[in-house]
Amino acid sequence: MTDYRPPLRDVTFVLDHLVDLEALCRLEPFRHLDPKTIEGVLEENARFVSEVIAPLNRVGDEQGSRYGGDHAVTTPDGFKEAYAAYVDAGWGAVPFEPGYGGGGFPWLVGIVLQEFMSSANMAFSMCPLLTQGAIDMLRHHGDEVQQQLYLPKMITGEWTGTMNLTEPEAGSDVGALRTRAVPADDGSWRITGNKIFISFGEHDLAENIVHLVLARVPDAPPGTKGISCFIVPKFLVGDDGALGERNDVTCVSIEHKMGIKASPTCVMSYGEQGEGAVGYLIGEPNQGMRYMFTMMNNARLSVGLEGLALSERAYQDALAYAQERHQGRAPGAPAGEASSIIEHPDVRRMLLTMKAYIEAMRALIYVTAERMDVALADPDPDVRRAASERVDLLIPLCKAWSTDLGVEVTSLAIQIHGGMGYIEETGVAQHFRDARITPIYEGTNGIQAMDLVGRKLPMRGGGVVADLLDEIRALDERLAAAGDDLASIRTNLAEAVATLSEATDWMLRHGAEDVRNALAGATPYLRMCALTAGGWLMARQALAATDALGQLDDGADTAPLDAKITTARFYAEQLLPAVKGLAGPTTAGFADLYAVDPADLAG
Amino acid sequence: MTDYRPPLRDVTFVLDHLVDLEALCRLEPFRHLDPKTIEGVLEENARFVSEVIAPLNRVGDEQGSRYGGDHAVTTPDGFKEAYAAYVDAGWGAVPFEPGYGGGGFPWLVGIVLQEFMSSANMAFSMCPLLTQGAIDMLRHHGDEVQQQLYLPKMITGEWTGTMNLTEPEAGSDVGALRTRAVPADDGSWRITGNKIFISFGEHDLAENIVHLVLARVPDAPPGTKGISCFIVPKFLVGDDGALGERNDVTCVSIEHKMGIKASPTCVMSYGEQGEGAVGYLIGEPNQGMRYMFTMMNNARLSVGLEGLALSERAYQDALAYAQERHQGRAPGAPAGEASSIIEHPDVRRMLLTMKAYIEAMRALIYVTAERMDVALADPDPDVRRAASERVDLLIPLCKAWSTDLGVEVTSLAIQIHGGMGYIEETGVAQHFRDARITPIYEGTNGIQAMDLVGRKLPMRGGGVVADLLDEIRALDERLAAAGDDLASIRTNLAEAVATLSEATDWMLRHGAEDVRNALAGATPYLRMCALTAGGWLMARQALAATDALGQLDDGADTAPLDAKITTARFYAEQLLPAVKGLAGPTTAGFADLYAVDPADLAG
Repeated sequence: MTDYRPPLRDVTFVLDHLVDLEALCRLEPFRHLDPKTIEGVLEENARFVSEVIAPLNRVGDEQGSRYGGDHAVTTPDGFKEAYAAYVDAGWGAVPFEPGYGGGGFPWLVGIVLQEFMSSANMAFSMCPLLTQGAIDMLRHHGDEVQQQLYLPKMITGEWTGTMNLTEPEAGSDVGALRTRAVPADDGSWRITGNKIFISFGEHDLAENIVHLVLARVPDAPPGTKGISCFIVPKFLVGDDGALGERNDVTCVSIEHKMGIKASPTCVMSYGEQGEGAVGYLIGEPNQGMRYMFTMMNNARLSVGLEGLALSERAYQDALAYAQERHQGRAPGAPAGEASSIIEHPDVRRMLLTMKAYIEAMRALIYVTAERMDVALADPDPDVRRAASERVDLLIPLCKAWSTDLGVEVTSLAIQIHGGMGYIEETGVAQHFRDARITPIYEGTNGIQAMDLVGRKLPMRGGGVVADLLDEIRALDERLAAAGDDLASIRTNLAEAVATLSEATDWMLRHGAEDVRNALAGATPYLRMCALTAGGWLMARQALAATDALGQLDDGADTAPLDAKITTARFYAEQLLPAVKGLAGPTTAGFADLYAVDPADLAG
Repeated sequence: MTDYRPPLRDVTFVLDHLVDLEALCRLEPFRHLDPKTIEGVLEENARFVSEVIAPLNRVGDEQGSRYGGDHAVTTPDGFKEAYAAYVDAGWGAVPFEPGYGGGGFPWLVGIVLQEFMSSANMAFSMCPLLTQGAIDMLRHHGDEVQQQLYLPKMITGEWTGTMNLTEPEAGSDVGALRTRAVPADDGSWRITGNKIFISFGEHDLAENIVHLVLARVPDAPPGTKGISCFIVPKFLVGDDGALGERNDVTCVSIEHKMGIKASPTCVMSYGEQGEGAVGYLIGEPNQGMRYMFTMMNNARLSVGLEGLALSERAYQDALAYAQERHQGRAPGAPAGEASSIIEHPDVRRMLLTMKAYIEAMRALIYVTAERMDVALADPDPDVRRAASERVDLLIPLCKAWSTDLGVEVTSLAIQIHGGMGYIEETGVAQHFRDARITPIYEGTNGIQAMDLVGRKLPMRGGGVVADLLDEIRALDERLAAAGDDLASIRTNLAEAVATLSEATDWMLRHGAEDVRNALAGATPYLRMCALTAGGWLMARQALAATDALGQLDDGADTAPLDAKITTARFYAEQLLPAVKGLAGPTTAGFADLYAVDPADLAG
């Protein structure tokens, strides 16, 4: 495993050319910023994560977080010190409003920092990520007292946060949860139940852990309409903010997982010792799911980002190995000496596949994050609405595509390493194992696909998708004007849009007849959409690079811009055509899926 | 993890309808057999592996094989007893000639047994598999004295075998190896060097280990032309077959791998303590690579089979879980109760995808194995030659496609398990980790693709591929006659063949201009070929099932045959169309791959 080097060049390219950072800095909440300041923050953070966080990735995997048996969880060597350094530097505060100590930066900037930290050490990064989710919930739905009591310490990272949704019988179906909350005399509540899969539910990194817990109040309606959300701190917090008694919430075991071993996945028990853990209701009873929905886009974007982040890290490892390792003789190489394996065409193909997917994912996720900022902060309500719709459409693509690709790209990195890739000490196998959770959690990718065809495609009767397709088609003229270098990008993108457009019409028409038609084709349809969106953003990058080449000073290095154009062309010619192969499964309908009785599915 | 149940029904279907088992039993070496006897052997073996071998799969992964520090390797609990039972039952002898105690069964039958054992416990199965490779080498290239001394004990399994090719600087490029062999006065040789990645190089299952070691004799030509092959037994064997002195070959460490943890991957040291380990030359000096090539098809087929075997095991787990697990409400299900997740369309899609790939892989591998038997045993030299060419063409497809799919299908099994799939105790993660080695060893899948376009496609100027395409096209008439149920199979297969045919012409033409064109598109081309070959074999199965339905007695259960037709149609409509998406990358040429300097590939 090589050292991790945050990909500042490509990040900057996307920030410069695909999003309008200057415009973002003119929005009210970000007026105190300018692109130069943002760039400085990114560079500083890149240094921090590569020096402090990334070196702990292997030890984190080797040791894992360990359960003590006395309800305590010990994180791997070095995690405590690294987390303290993270808190000291104030990195967790960057994307939050200044009110409770936040840095007041756009979400987009927070997303770039998240990419770096997830690449550096995904398991470590989950602690701040979960904390960020809990902060998000409290700032939107907590009352002022709750915000004043919890947010300042959570924004610094002195206290961490968790999200407690899942129970053994309530995974994808959150509405099936059974944890109970009963009111106490003092206005607080008593929580009783068990939760599973709680990331960083217990650990030794912070002095307090603020659990956000979904539970049912007495007489709550069944299903998702009867879920309420509670604050359950590990240590109770006095009105003055001082830590008090230990609350009746304990970790009773942690899972033995395939990856992200340093991130303790806890089984949590609430109220085992008495009348329940002390909890505080957030907002109104039975509104918990509605509140969760307001955080969902952020959470899903962050998980998609993990797919990108692990792909980037694995790519850096594979690229370094492909240059160091000599084996065989590449076509045209002199006889008698072994070529660097990067000279073999198939190794190049793997590297360019990784690179092209990574650049497309990064563009998609950053563009989505920028739209989130615009959706919140633009003064024009029409602009806000359009941005918000675009975000809603792109989120399932960001989550599902980037995490599926995370598995595929980290797998390619192993393949480039050959037999060494299968040996744990090499380090690249860890990325693949770590990546495998991302298509599952925060809504499985099947659920993302259902969300796309069930909620997003029907928005404005298909109008939101149609707007995106129109925007992609509108590139055609610029691509035509850009000449031969971009000619195959133009033709392949046009073909993809036409195929996607037909499949979209089919989905709208036949999904309306029977929802099973849409659900049956949802997964390949999502992939078609994402591949095409990726093609659109790669084409925009190729155009931007072409423009930038025209403005370079004489003698300036053209290689990075040339590489961007080549990568975009590779994407268009070699990855985007998969859209054609997905039209069949998207539009096949549901009949064959149900034609075989489950009893006859066995061999 | 469920119990493993060998898929006798589908195996029997393929044996009954895609290969001609009766005809095989009429060939000279197999005259003592009949289909009924073969069926009995399969059933008996199915019982043995499911009762004795399969239950050790989890413990094998949990404990792994352990290195003692004193050059000893301890296999997991129960492995020793299970291996002894395997030897007692004589399963290892089944596919070998009767001369040295073999069972005289066709290779095809050996392949079915291998599928069952690899599904049951891939790590365990590698010990007999490597032994089989060593037997294969000795029976083809050993002299009579060597055969008499080693084969009887290896065929029973009392002694195991290994293949020692890889060295730190000689992986894919075997020709770079540096282990030396010098002649001794008594006609034997002294071997000195280090080997890595030696599966079951040391273990506690058998009383002796027969290492086959590639090394260089003095003044050997460089590269693959200067490699010789030696027998290096762990314990020297007297003329009377009795075990003598310990030879100077030791295991110095074992690797810490992502999967197949029960299979010790050994670093072996030869001649560390003196003048070299005692070795015996097989055949002529400098002919080692030629000898290896005669075993290569068998070895590669067996690894492809591992991809199939793990897919089958993972499918069984996923199918059972999808029926047990209740979550959410499927379309049309009654309100208020959770549906079995198998009722959700996307879960069905995943299961049918797995099932269809598995049935296509099984057909491809079994058909190839049957052609191997025909290529060796048919009295007609033209039939033998045609069979042999077909085998050479299909082997890289069997190896690369089945192992890539092994990773994809086991990944789908994890996905169906949701969060539970990521927890090691569930058992399904192990299949995915185990599967990940198969695209790497026995020639990486990139090397398989190079083999396909560099050696196989040019056979008879493309004639061998053309024959296969013609054979697929010839199905069209029968498909047309079969009516509506098979109509979409017909159209999709025709489209795939047309696309593949065009891509093949491109490969032949542009590969001749510059070999880099062929190498650049080799991987997607292999996938096109394999998907289409799978489509051909699924179409043949659909036709056979249609015929069989017509011959069923009144009241007989039509469900298995209906399921076969549905699965074939699903493959044709939903998996085969990917061929269209692969034409672009196959025919894109090499220019873009080399357009970016390695230094500029970093983000």
